[in-house]
Amino acid sequence: MNKTENKVLAFIKANHLVSRGSEVIVAVSGGADSVGLLHILHNISSELDISLHVAHLDHMLRGEPSRQDAEFVKKLADRLCLPATLGLEDVSAYRQQHRLTLEEAAREVRYKFLEEVVKATGATCAAVAHTMNDHVETVLLHLLRGSGLTGLAGLQAKSVLRYKRVGPLTLIRPLLCLNRGDIEEYCRDSNIEFRNDASNESLSFTRNRIRRKLLPSLRQDFNPSIDEALDRLSKLAVEEVDFKNREAAKASESIIRTEGPLVKIDRKGYLGLHPALKRALLRQALVSVLGSPKDIEAVHIEKMVDLAEGETGRSVNLPDGINFISSYSELVLGRDVSADIPLPEITGTYAINVPGVTEMPGWNITASVIEYGPDLITGKENDGFSQLFDFDAVGSELKVRTRKPGDRFIPLGEVAEKSVKDYFIDAKVPRLWRPRVPVVVNHGQIVWLAGYRLDDRAKVTPATKNVLKLVFRPQSTILPV
Amino acid sequence: MNKTENKVLAFIKANHLVSRGSEVIVAVSGGADSVGLLHILHNISSELDISLHVAHLDHMLRGEPSRQDAEFVKKLADRLCLPATLGLEDVSAYRQQHRLTLEEAAREVRYKFLEEVVKATGATCAAVAHTMNDHVETVLLHLLRGSGLTGLAGLQAKSVLRYKRVGPLTLIRPLLCLNRGDIEEYCRDSNIEFRNDASNESLSFTRNRIRRKLLPSLRQDFNPSIDEALDRLSKLAVEEVDFKNREAAKASESIIRTEGPLVKIDRKGYLGLHPALKRALLRQALVSVLGSPKDIEAVHIEKMVDLAEGETGRSVNLPDGINFISSYSELVLGRDVSADIPLPEITGTYAINVPGVTEMPGWNITASVIEYGPDLITGKENDGFSQLFDFDAVGSELKVRTRKPGDRFIPLGEVAEKSVKDYFIDAKVPRLWRPRVPVVVNHGQIVWLAGYRLDDRAKVTPATKNVLKLVFRPQSTILPV
Repeated sequence: MNKTENKVLAFIKANHLVSRGSEVIVAVSGGADSVGLLHILHNISSELDISLHVAHLDHMLRGEPSRQDAEFVKKLADRLCLPATLGLEDVSAYRQQHRLTLEEAAREVRYKFLEEVVKATGATCAAVAHTMNDHVETVLLHLLRGSGLTGLAGLQAKSVLRYKRVGPLTLIRPLLCLNRGDIEEYCRDSNIEFRNDASNESLSFTRNRIRRKLLPSLRQDFNPSIDEALDRLSKLAVEEVDFKNREAAKASESIIRTEGPLVKIDRKGYLGLHPALKRALLRQALVSVLGSPKDIEAVHIEKMVDLAEGETGRSVNLPDGINFISSYSELVLGRDVSADIPLPEITGTYAINVPGVTEMPGWNITASVIEYGPDLITGKENDGFSQLFDFDAVGSELKVRTRKPGDRFIPLGEVAEKSVKDYFIDAKVPRLWRPRVPVVVNHGQIVWLAGYRLDDRAKVTPATKNVLKLVFRPQSTILPV
Repeated sequence: MNKTENKVLAFIKANHLVSRGSEVIVAVSGGADSVGLLHILHNISSELDISLHVAHLDHMLRGEPSRQDAEFVKKLADRLCLPATLGLEDVSAYRQQHRLTLEEAAREVRYKFLEEVVKATGATCAAVAHTMNDHVETVLLHLLRGSGLTGLAGLQAKSVLRYKRVGPLTLIRPLLCLNRGDIEEYCRDSNIEFRNDASNESLSFTRNRIRRKLLPSLRQDFNPSIDEALDRLSKLAVEEVDFKNREAAKASESIIRTEGPLVKIDRKGYLGLHPALKRALLRQALVSVLGSPKDIEAVHIEKMVDLAEGETGRSVNLPDGINFISSYSELVLGRDVSADIPLPEITGTYAINVPGVTEMPGWNITASVIEYGPDLITGKENDGFSQLFDFDAVGSELKVRTRKPGDRFIPLGEVAEKSVKDYFIDAKVPRLWRPRVPVVVNHGQIVWLAGYRLDDRAKVTPATKNVLKLVFRPQSTILPV
């Protein structure tokens, strides 16, 4: 066993990449990295007590040379007396079918193939030939694209791949402890033949620019140890994110509960968290509903953060038909989440006793008339269902009903009329909730959308003499009292 | 008030950069950024209810143009009817005196001057003209240098500067909400004259390459929004580090105590922490002893982490004469930390009763002879003061003394003799502890450095028939029992 093999062996052991007696699929393209990987694993397989199975996919992208790569890998496997699975997939067709870039299509097809081989053989994982250089390039790629700290993680020694159409597939990367130069040297010193992996070179324009132009110039002009620097940053980011995720998971225990397909987050508990934990907790909740972190972008988390900090009774759309709604005491995440309506149904029109108590199906309404004073204004409650009015502006002939087609009002703080329909859309009120929002009218004119917005003409001003206070309380326990 | 002034005003308010009625020093070099800053602050000062005081330092680096800059700034301050302090400092001399790079010297001298003006005027802070571009350049600079997540913070809207010879100085950066282009446009649109700030351009080679070559090429070849991407990453890193630091401070309350000039960390409590918290906690402890984070490099924290995870009784050197020592139940940080010796003093030589109990000044020694069995080996204790021996190899004529000049032994696991002196040095045993390490000898031959290392010849092997167990317990309460 030479020093390179020893190093990889130690790396595999230190990171618990394989378990004794297991079968490992080795992804071999035919290039130096993967052929080197196969030879190294072959030479240390008895020490690790693992058996190997070679997997090669012909992407059908480069015609004859593609076919020759496959043949080369088959012969290599035969020579090492290893079983091999050779696949053939039309990446161009796959690309068109799923509307992907060539790079994305090739990656998906490749990992799908590996997943199938892993399943078919009963193997535990697939080994791929990514080196420290690939890792550093990935860190830089994510940095430049503007991903968050999670993106700085780069490539891990062991990870579970979950794409929309692939996975879960456990990948191990035994060569992360080596540079590309090390593996080329290993092949040269051991007289190992390999093929030039032209496909690998051409697929990602950005990655190639990073590899061939940016990194060499950073090494030369800024820091000869830039690779180590980025790797160190990456490790710190992984540690940091892991810590935060653990703390977020701890916080979740008392704040989040799952109810059927819905995830419900206690609003008060959430608002008391540190911003970093808020973000991590929302991300975890979204991952649990989506089943995978793959489609989550930073903008989705930002949308969720904004909603959670904002007024209640709003909703935002997230990938895969998922909604996030700020209900009154909870934040609710899931598909068809708005079907979980926190407002009681209203049928018909009900006169409000002013002053007095009105009971109507679903709601109890308390109306009191009080003299104007500064303490009144500050005594404002926050769930949106208590409201002060200029009594002389709204009068005592108030009624409650639900919205009607053509309803219009002047939302508080604005000057022009707006249709209630447009208001609901702009204010992101969940569609299924809209027919249940109590509309308080004075001789047909809207004075309040209870839970949402006052009409500007009904507001208390310094000129107000008498104040009307309306409080809506649900008869059921749906809303917090 | 135009839109740029409005933007800066909103930024100052949102970040609580100034308090009403306070005096703010404005650092003005004469270049576009700082002259723009002065005009903006001047135009919004009544809205903020602050008064301004101009500060300009002539670095004496560029002869006549340097002097003209000063004159320009003085005239500007006069025209705006603002008080001004003009300073003159020989940066080259300062550089030689303190052995700094030109850039470091200029920065120190500049901030020292600002600190003096702040003090002399009773101002609360100094405003400097860093823009969003300076911030992004700083983030990238730190990234390339390989600093950790803390370095990604870049420039903050408000920060307290603490250098070795400067500070604390509260700096505010009201222009962080603008790009360099915005401020140039502002000067152009408002017909504001400024001088070309040649010194600013030439001082840092690396920063200039980032500004003039790297960032433009990243914007063109990789991501036109790279500035926003780096700023976002920076904000996430700040949030993350803040969260971690708060949690570390919480953990510190039960784990760290200060004893005079020493900081003592409970070893068990420390070892139970998440790696990210360990690092943050050690960093905070070091900052508290150093009085500033300025001289702390990643390598210092790594040294501390390694020591804390390793065997007890070792020490490492940190900046400014600070030591970090892993004592038996504690990690101790401070100057002269090794003076806090956890080992009792030994004078003379004492025979050990085998089997039996030996009382000597400072120590109680229990010796028992037991038959060899596998459970014996696993019953190993970890503080280093319980040890099993091959009884036939060491015999019963054992004595305890302290080290003597010329003492040699074969450290467990090695084959060659080594001087005890070299062993102590290599094992990082604190210098002041060395004369107190109990040395167990058999007819003059060392069999054990209690607390540290067994002699290889005294070890238990499969061939061992009888086992001697020695346990050292301190008579005082210095060591944990």
